[in-house]
Amino acid sequence: MPIRALVFDAYGTLFDVHSVTARCDALFPGRGSDLSRLWRQKQLEYTWLRTLMGRYESFEAVTAGALRHACAALQLPLSAESEKALVLDYRRLSTFPEAAAALAGLRDCRLAILSNGSPEMLNAVVRHSGLDRLLDHVISVDEIRVFKPHPAVYRLAADRLQVRVEDIGFVSSNYWDVCGAASCRLQAYWINRTRAMEDPLGQRPKAVLERLTDLIGLIND
Amino acid sequence: MPIRALVFDAYGTLFDVHSVTARCDALFPGRGSDLSRLWRQKQLEYTWLRTLMGRYESFEAVTAGALRHACAALQLPLSAESEKALVLDYRRLSTFPEAAAALAGLRDCRLAILSNGSPEMLNAVVRHSGLDRLLDHVISVDEIRVFKPHPAVYRLAADRLQVRVEDIGFVSSNYWDVCGAASCRLQAYWINRTRAMEDPLGQRPKAVLERLTDLIGLIND
Repeated sequence: MPIRALVFDAYGTLFDVHSVTARCDALFPGRGSDLSRLWRQKQLEYTWLRTLMGRYESFEAVTAGALRHACAALQLPLSAESEKALVLDYRRLSTFPEAAAALAGLRDCRLAILSNGSPEMLNAVVRHSGLDRLLDHVISVDEIRVFKPHPAVYRLAADRLQVRVEDIGFVSSNYWDVCGAASCRLQAYWINRTRAMEDPLGQRPKAVLERLTDLIGLIND
Repeated sequence: MPIRALVFDAYGTLFDVHSVTARCDALFPGRGSDLSRLWRQKQLEYTWLRTLMGRYESFEAVTAGALRHACAALQLPLSAESEKALVLDYRRLSTFPEAAAALAGLRDCRLAILSNGSPEMLNAVVRHSGLDRLLDHVISVDEIRVFKPHPAVYRLAADRLQVRVEDIGFVSSNYWDVCGAASCRLQAYWINRTRAMEDPLGQRPKAVLERLTDLIGLIND
């Protein structure tokens, strides 16, 4: 099936959410990676629970709440300044090393981001990374006030790009996000950098790749 | 506000999901508590994700899938027999020590369970515990094919019990379940046995108690 647009997840796929670990570790020596992991787990959990309850709040607010909870649970004292600095780090996350080359190699397709991120934090990280020069659209769930993997999110991409869901290639490192897209009939590719295990969610990716640049041969064929 | 019915969560509230740890540890010495924890985390995650995607499957199937994933992720070889035995353990979970005394002391109210559990596994564990003699209703989400904390679940309890949501006292040890109930205007009580931290989900319990028997004075007043 031809792909008329390629849509990328942002956090974890183009941008490394664990690039906050360095500041976490500077603030709480030896605890940075525990904190980064629990922070991310709670951040995702809250997006799912809030969407289920119909109680949306912006991803930036969710991210700050998850950080406060993770610090409290790990008994790490978090000052207001440190909280602000860590949440602002989401506007300067590292880009995965192959991301720019992958997007540059895929320019025959229209290229977009579809993300949970609130518009301000999302636009900031895209600009900071320089990927804005390679992307045609940056789409945030914020306007529909539900998070992934709610079906409305994947349909929003089709609406914005004016293509059918079946004609979208969707790329994510988050397996549950891949399943959400596949469940809505997008052509879903899983970037599995860490040899993670698949979750039995009743959906499967169209292909599993080790890095973003592996898409180039696949899509351009 | 008067309470016309008391509705209890099952897994984690009346029944101890970590009572499977012993068999986990017998099968995988030294790894029982890691396995039990990841199994439970994945089980909940899958109920949330499947509900978000509109891809329900029974809680027993979700529980089995979560077990297989947790074993694979921890590199523990799980035989078909062990999988079956561990999933069947959900029909014989331990009851928290004070559960029967609490229900007996609250009999002036109508008493019910509202659970993600599929009817067979739920009825089995209730019978095994002997709590069936103290309960008026056992309500499973299975008939509406969504899991907690989707609002339809808490409304189902009101429908079945023929009372308004505001007149239900809802009791859970799972903080996110308490939030789901509070978000639907039930009077939600959090049983916090482990001194867990609250999650910032925009809802709060009406009261936080250490054990189920603490409800007796509160509700009967």
